[in-house]
Amino acid sequence: MSDQPSAADEIMDGVYRALRAHGFADVTMQDIADECSKSKSLLHYHYDTKEDLLVAFLDHVITDSEARIDAHADDPPTERLAQFVGWFVFEADAVDREAFHIALLELRTQGPFNERIRDQLARSDRLLRGTVADILEAGIEQGVFRDVDVEETAALLVATLDGARTRQITLSEGTGGTPDDGETATEGVGQTYTRTVAEATLDRIIGPLLADGVELPSLTEGIEEMAPEGEYE
Amino acid sequence: MSDQPSAADEIMDGVYRALRAHGFADVTMQDIADECSKSKSLLHYHYDTKEDLLVAFLDHVITDSEARIDAHADDPPTERLAQFVGWFVFEADAVDREAFHIALLELRTQGPFNERIRDQLARSDRLLRGTVADILEAGIEQGVFRDVDVEETAALLVATLDGARTRQITLSEGTGGTPDDGETATEGVGQTYTRTVAEATLDRIIGPLLADGVELPSLTEGIEEMAPEGEYE
Repeated sequence: MSDQPSAADEIMDGVYRALRAHGFADVTMQDIADECSKSKSLLHYHYDTKEDLLVAFLDHVITDSEARIDAHADDPPTERLAQFVGWFVFEADAVDREAFHIALLELRTQGPFNERIRDQLARSDRLLRGTVADILEAGIEQGVFRDVDVEETAALLVATLDGARTRQITLSEGTGGTPDDGETATEGVGQTYTRTVAEATLDRIIGPLLADGVELPSLTEGIEEMAPEGEYE
Repeated sequence: MSDQPSAADEIMDGVYRALRAHGFADVTMQDIADECSKSKSLLHYHYDTKEDLLVAFLDHVITDSEARIDAHADDPPTERLAQFVGWFVFEADAVDREAFHIALLELRTQGPFNERIRDQLARSDRLLRGTVADILEAGIEQGVFRDVDVEETAALLVATLDGARTRQITLSEGTGGTPDDGETATEGVGQTYTRTVAEATLDRIIGPLLADGVELPSLTEGIEEMAPEGEYE
């Protein structure tokens, strides 16, 4: 066994960097080849088309997310829920991360037109909502959450956090630093859209789920626990 | 004074139809000209570039939203909040509306790269969050809402509803009818993502804002009140 990354992993890392740099609409096989120091013909040997490669990349990113979620499967349910919320918090200087998620959002707009992309998006949706549902069910069983509608709560949490991320990245200047004119990020609050919404989510949505006497988990610890260990933030 | 639509209005309606049919990335000045039965040279006489025209269209859509919000400014705050939530509910057969919002989402992904688009997105964000904040302030003053953090609540509501819409339209098959395989829409709930999240928003986020004895407003009425009267849904 070798510690060397496989060619497939190197190619996936190349897609990640190329998407960040060029976006989904403009990225070419040559850009990806350049980013992973492979030849374009080698890429085409493994992936017939750019679409094949991008679908494989989506698959890879979702599998990476599954692994990241699984790594915390034994943490207490309240902490896992704070980790899930914290995962969606983007600080104002997270330029690379915003660029990557803008490219992913571009890819997502292709869902209605491309069945293979849509299948990956549906898998991601099942993963995200399923993770929240699992956490809630475990917590209800352990008596730390009240007996809430698990599916509805999962849809609400995923929509809320995804929405905050989409608003933050689309309103952002994309060159890093502070937001556009102080009005595009959460006006008068002095922090990012995702952080404002994550705090509100903890207080307003998760707080009321807790059984009597159970303490609200810490967003700061949640963010730290889910800080990128893998490649894709 | 004439009841005839102005040339500018006809062009905007052409952009709307062309975006629905072709999406943002693929739409051409010729497509737009075809949709409003104008010549391409007339379009270019008014708008130098496709970007100019699309920015003017965004401006037009946001102004249309402002008018729609203003038309309900004298309704009771609880009803206005239900209308705001209902505005984001897309039924499963809302094919044209989903197609339009996919095109808008594509446009939004250009925010970080295009200052004029970003300025319009920031304006839309101020309109949406400002509307919720106004409703909440009026309701607090009238004693129908508790004294909550208005800005935080506005960010939470807008993120939640936008997120549900983004998830519904990107996971949708785009050809209308039922969602992909029964699993892409809210699994096991039998209704759209936006409806599930709208109901959860009313119960979980808005319910706790109400002062004692104030009744939760009806989502059904909220949806009906905001049903498209103008051109853009």
